[in-house]
Amino acid sequence: MSRLWEKGLPLDERVLRYTAGEDHILDARLVPYDVRASIAHAEMLAARKLIDEADCRQISAGLAELEASFAKGEWQIGLEDEDVHTALESRLTAAIGEAGERLHLGRSRNDQVLTALRLYLRDAAGDLARRTGDLAQALAELGKRNGNVALPGYTHMQHAMPSSVELWAGGFREAFADAIAGFEAADRRAALNPLGSAAGYGTPLPLDRDRTTAELGFAATQEPVTAAQLSRGRAESTLLFEITLLMQDLGRLASDLLLFYTQEFSYVALPASHTTGSSIMPQKRNPDVLELVRAASATAHACLNESLGITAKLPSGYHRDLQRLKPPLFRGIDLCIETVDIMADLIGSLEFLPDNIRLDDGIFAAERAYELVRSEGITFREAYRRVAARYAE
Amino acid sequence: MSRLWEKGLPLDERVLRYTAGEDHILDARLVPYDVRASIAHAEMLAARKLIDEADCRQISAGLAELEASFAKGEWQIGLEDEDVHTALESRLTAAIGEAGERLHLGRSRNDQVLTALRLYLRDAAGDLARRTGDLAQALAELGKRNGNVALPGYTHMQHAMPSSVELWAGGFREAFADAIAGFEAADRRAALNPLGSAAGYGTPLPLDRDRTTAELGFAATQEPVTAAQLSRGRAESTLLFEITLLMQDLGRLASDLLLFYTQEFSYVALPASHTTGSSIMPQKRNPDVLELVRAASATAHACLNESLGITAKLPSGYHRDLQRLKPPLFRGIDLCIETVDIMADLIGSLEFLPDNIRLDDGIFAAERAYELVRSEGITFREAYRRVAARYAE
Amino acid sequence: MSRLWEKGLPLDERVLRYTAGEDHILDARLVPYDVRASIAHAEMLAARKLIDEADCRQISAGLAELEASFAKGEWQIGLEDEDVHTALESRLTAAIGEAGERLHLGRSRNDQVLTALRLYLRDAAGDLARRTGDLAQALAELGKRNGNVALPGYTHMQHAMPSSVELWAGGFREAFADAIAGFEAADRRAALNPLGSAAGYGTPLPLDRDRTTAELGFAATQEPVTAAQLSRGRAESTLLFEITLLMQDLGRLASDLLLFYTQEFSYVALPASHTTGSSIMPQKRNPDVLELVRAASATAHACLNESLGITAKLPSGYHRDLQRLKPPLFRGIDLCIETVDIMADLIGSLEFLPDNIRLDDGIFAAERAYELVRSEGITFREAYRRVAARYAE
Amino acid sequence: MSRLWEKGLPLDERVLRYTAGEDHILDARLVPYDVRASIAHAEMLAARKLIDEADCRQISAGLAELEASFAKGEWQIGLEDEDVHTALESRLTAAIGEAGERLHLGRSRNDQVLTALRLYLRDAAGDLARRTGDLAQALAELGKRNGNVALPGYTHMQHAMPSSVELWAGGFREAFADAIAGFEAADRRAALNPLGSAAGYGTPLPLDRDRTTAELGFAATQEPVTAAQLSRGRAESTLLFEITLLMQDLGRLASDLLLFYTQEFSYVALPASHTTGSSIMPQKRNPDVLELVRAASATAHACLNESLGITAKLPSGYHRDLQRLKPPLFRGIDLCIETVDIMADLIGSLEFLPDNIRLDDGIFAAERAYELVRSEGITFREAYRRVAARYAE
Repeated sequence: MSRLWEKGLPLDERVLRYTAGEDHILDARLVPYDVRASIAHAEMLAARKLIDEADCRQISAGLAELEASFAKGEWQIGLEDEDVHTALESRLTAAIGEAGERLHLGRSRNDQVLTALRLYLRDAAGDLARRTGDLAQALAELGKRNGNVALPGYTHMQHAMPSSVELWAGGFREAFADAIAGFEAADRRAALNPLGSAAGYGTPLPLDRDRTTAELGFAATQEPVTAAQLSRGRAESTLLFEITLLMQDLGRLASDLLLFYTQEFSYVALPASHTTGSSIMPQKRNPDVLELVRAASATAHACLNESLGITAKLPSGYHRDLQRLKPPLFRGIDLCIETVDIMADLIGSLEFLPDNIRLDDGIFAAERAYELVRSEGITFREAYRRVAARYAE
Repeated sequence: MSRLWEKGLPLDERVLRYTAGEDHILDARLVPYDVRASIAHAEMLAARKLIDEADCRQISAGLAELEASFAKGEWQIGLEDEDVHTALESRLTAAIGEAGERLHLGRSRNDQVLTALRLYLRDAAGDLARRTGDLAQALAELGKRNGNVALPGYTHMQHAMPSSVELWAGGFREAFADAIAGFEAADRRAALNPLGSAAGYGTPLPLDRDRTTAELGFAATQEPVTAAQLSRGRAESTLLFEITLLMQDLGRLASDLLLFYTQEFSYVALPASHTTGSSIMPQKRNPDVLELVRAASATAHACLNESLGITAKLPSGYHRDLQRLKPPLFRGIDLCIETVDIMADLIGSLEFLPDNIRLDDGIFAAERAYELVRSEGITFREAYRRVAARYAE
Repeated sequence: MSRLWEKGLPLDERVLRYTAGEDHILDARLVPYDVRASIAHAEMLAARKLIDEADCRQISAGLAELEASFAKGEWQIGLEDEDVHTALESRLTAAIGEAGERLHLGRSRNDQVLTALRLYLRDAAGDLARRTGDLAQALAELGKRNGNVALPGYTHMQHAMPSSVELWAGGFREAFADAIAGFEAADRRAALNPLGSAAGYGTPLPLDRDRTTAELGFAATQEPVTAAQLSRGRAESTLLFEITLLMQDLGRLASDLLLFYTQEFSYVALPASHTTGSSIMPQKRNPDVLELVRAASATAHACLNESLGITAKLPSGYHRDLQRLKPPLFRGIDLCIETVDIMADLIGSLEFLPDNIRLDDGIFAAERAYELVRSEGITFREAYRRVAARYAE
Repeated sequence: MSRLWEKGLPLDERVLRYTAGEDHILDARLVPYDVRASIAHAEMLAARKLIDEADCRQISAGLAELEASFAKGEWQIGLEDEDVHTALESRLTAAIGEAGERLHLGRSRNDQVLTALRLYLRDAAGDLARRTGDLAQALAELGKRNGNVALPGYTHMQHAMPSSVELWAGGFREAFADAIAGFEAADRRAALNPLGSAAGYGTPLPLDRDRTTAELGFAATQEPVTAAQLSRGRAESTLLFEITLLMQDLGRLASDLLLFYTQEFSYVALPASHTTGSSIMPQKRNPDVLELVRAASATAHACLNESLGITAKLPSGYHRDLQRLKPPLFRGIDLCIETVDIMADLIGSLEFLPDNIRLDDGIFAAERAYELVRSEGITFREAYRRVAARYAE
């Protein structure tokens, strides 16, 4: 809101607002991940005798309690907290005293942020894969309901070859299976543990990075320490790229259905629950959901562009620029979840209308040419020419 | 939030959430513009005898009251309202009865949305121009404070020719003057009145479109009616393009200052209020504001990409896709306002440190070549070769 | 070609190929502009007594001859020339001797490149405007041929309100008029003379920059000298943005026609010359031109993105990065020229097929509601409800 | 070239130029892949008795000969050929007669193009991985030469923690290892055999798709047939995404080196072969290669955007739009090859200059805090405050 920027505000608050941005709101989803990573860090410190066991227990219990109370809505991250990390550490220290002040030994906000983000990102990718599976399932069920309905197979938006709802849906099912495999493959870049790289140059302390790797379920410790910050953005952009591909396939599915739903085609009926009325034209049932899905592919693509644009050309090492990666990442993930789910709903009640579907006679031309090849032994090109001559009349 | 999408929610609510999106929040800034446009529409209807004068007065007064009570926080646009337009019309009818139901005659939400957006967009562009003027002023004052400080003029990030803070700042002042001219030029596409184009095909009613054009301060009535929806996105993308150019210049200013602020250069001192500390390194004073400004240029560019991506390839006529233009537009405008303002603050207290600035001796090589041309009458190329030979040693 | 990069090649040649890139090919179109700017520069030097009148005449005549012989194909810019500027200067010196070595006094390749590019860019924008005018004219003629044909007015790709070919074409005509105005407005950023800013920091020589400004038809001398290089990319991106908007409107026109050309719609006949056959299906007449136009909007958008991406985050001053602005600029301009021209051809022989166009009965629903308002004096909302009830049956 | 579009040209030729575009030039690299795929197709047809063994042998020999003569430069793909596929088939038929006309049985240009592209794409990804390995090797050797040189570890472009050339280079080595893994993973989407999907809807012929899958080394047959065209662009965009990530890391390496190469840092010496002179300033040695590498990351990103933009929102099935995927794909691959190679060269002769590298005293502040934690048993936060107090003086 522009009002925040009026000159009336004290400078420090304006700078805080500019630098902290929306983090206090965005970071809500990171609470469980930061808690988990902080507990793993404390336990590693204790195992290495860098803090006492008793302090470690206090830290773990305190963090678990903060997570629980956050989930119940008993506290929120405020702008003055800046982000989830400060919010948790300061509340922890307020709750358990000195032990809280021992937690940050051997880590930096740089590796802490990255650890929480990767844990979240891995969960989100898994969630997206599961939901995409539900969507593929909805398409499979459509195949059962309407699979035998004949459809024109289009090329150049023209009737080309005979097809069916089964074949049409099958193409998209393959796309969604590919998206699921893509989400799984995207995990490779997120499954690296940055914890212990501190500000990006390690620490002289005898940390046991492999311990937190195992504890947090990472596939490997990211080495060397300088790799952690240099890689920031790569896992984010990879997930956003996979999201963009899936959203494009959803957008293309929407384009097909918008075409099929025109009065001129009238190939499908959409559930009334997924259409909306007009403010001026009483007769309209508009396919708004499909239009928003089509447009959402552009939004997803823009999230990817934003993520790639932020990391471009930066010198190596941590820069505050990287904080701006969160909004497009979260926006892209949320948009994809919403869109996959609403499309699964819509597909679940979609019906093809076989009585309205007519196949152009020309659609069998290629088959006729094949028939000529078989029956007369002529070459395919000769058969093509003979059949084409018939259509030129 | 992903939680909204759980299967628990009734389908209709999920569809409402998907289709209405964030509009109920985003549209807050459109309240005064929709009120203004609705009053102009009502007065035009009355002038054309399509509604009574008494109804018109009731409508105008009712809307003015709703605007005032909204500004006081007495009501908000709810998700169930869908958007500002429904929120206002339904509250108006609740307040004044039947007259409220007469307001929508001869318009559609399609032209209504567009009218409010353009009015807002024109105000926002003007606001951006003014704020950019303040920033240019801050640079001019820096010129007064530090203008005579000698600076290396860089090409390829290498010392090239002698320069000064005055010259350096002057380049950016010209960029900001260009941005202001760009914001003014962007008005051309926003200054067209779509009101009366209804759903995009006009109405058979005897509307007086030029009256609302004059009343709302538009430069012209957009004709023909089909042009209104086809042009949607063009004014938005044009403003976002101008914002992107300005944000790039701000990002380049930030890049210069980040370079000058390295310990190796140490050419500038940043106000303490614009730097932040580190969670691990007690000595650090980090130039976070400048880094966020640099990254913000990528975010602005992504807003432009999103806007262009949404309109791409659509058939003509209104599509619900166009609703997705609002988030990148509003995000881009807000980001630009915040960034221009914070940079004006920062520039206002920036100081160059002449004692640390050293000009490489080679920086005068071109001048020496010119001197040889003058004194010896040789060609520039010959003088260049002679001076170059000296540097090759 | 990857083969160039094999290790067999001597290092220097590999570096030359990487740094010179395609410039020797791209720069062909800049020959007349560099000649023109160089002559203006030489005349200014002579007027300021920095070179002799005789040298100036030799330079001007020599350059004019080189331009003529280039146009006749008598020489080409080679990779070893690096670019048009070196190619011309070295050939000039070879032809006229010492006088050629005096030409580069008081300028740098930095301002020289920029001057030639802006002269070209201004011409290209004017050319684009003219061609877009021809396209608008083709649409106007279509309006004369088929204007009265009734068309459904679509919203959400659904029949919404009655429309006509005249109204449909008129929307696009307005878009093209807007594009022409956009090309003209884009001139503001190209019409600034950078010549005399040298490497970006001016020279100590008594140049008369306003003389070359007048001579070359620029609107103003770009001041201060540091503004020239900082602004590089802004005029390029502005033209590419305008091209992107126009290409999007062409893409949307193509989307409409691809829809109208489906067998299901069959609203239009495309000239046989603009369709192509299939390698397998003898019956097909595919609307390839329209599909390529639709896709071209993505290519144009990518050219804009490339241009904006290149300048992003750079420190001020000249960087070799800026050389990479040429390929997307030239690609975008060429693509737009080709696309505008082919669409003008296509529109010129497009025919609507009124016998196939059916308007959905519901399309008159809004008119019926207006009629009820008029005849019964009820509110629009009440009329809307009554008519809607009829369509719900 | 705009000249092609002058009205003088006959319409058919203009349409041919617009639709065939640059394919006749671009497709040169596809000759061996199309030959290989066509031979596999012919052998499958023969195995299925759809053509004679003798015809198959003639086809295979004829194609092999055409590939060999093309490699020797004895023929080229002409504009009138449209693309590599027509060029080969028509020359084959001219050479071997009727047998050539039998080749296209059971396939379409749609699956033929896709097959050749995927074979090429898989090779290109492997090539990129190998070259990136060479680059990583060059960095490893730099580590051996200069690894022990102390470097400031930067965060926010400020001295943060002690680092070394070894650690700095190690971060990029990890990035390049990640890029190689990325190129390998990208193969998943390219390793699916589309051959036999014909126009996208299969054929009624008894083709043996798994045979060509095995013959051409694909990992699997792409099923169902509708998946082939729907997936077009996904493998292309995936490779371009991986290229973009790598090019960003190269751009960030260039940014570091450009910083280190400034006179103010003077941390590195660049080989003279990788710097260029100035046309006006005789003293300059400019790091053009690094600047072009930095800018190339924007070009790579634009190639990705173009690819994603082309497929966005298309209905399913083949569209001519997809032809426009080739230029950004080829451009991105070539650019990446050139850039990886030139950087390997440059890194191979890069030298750090330890005498010029000074570490800021504050860089040891975090270590001092750790020391206080260890020696005095205080909390990290207390130690941080004590050390910070010292730096605030």
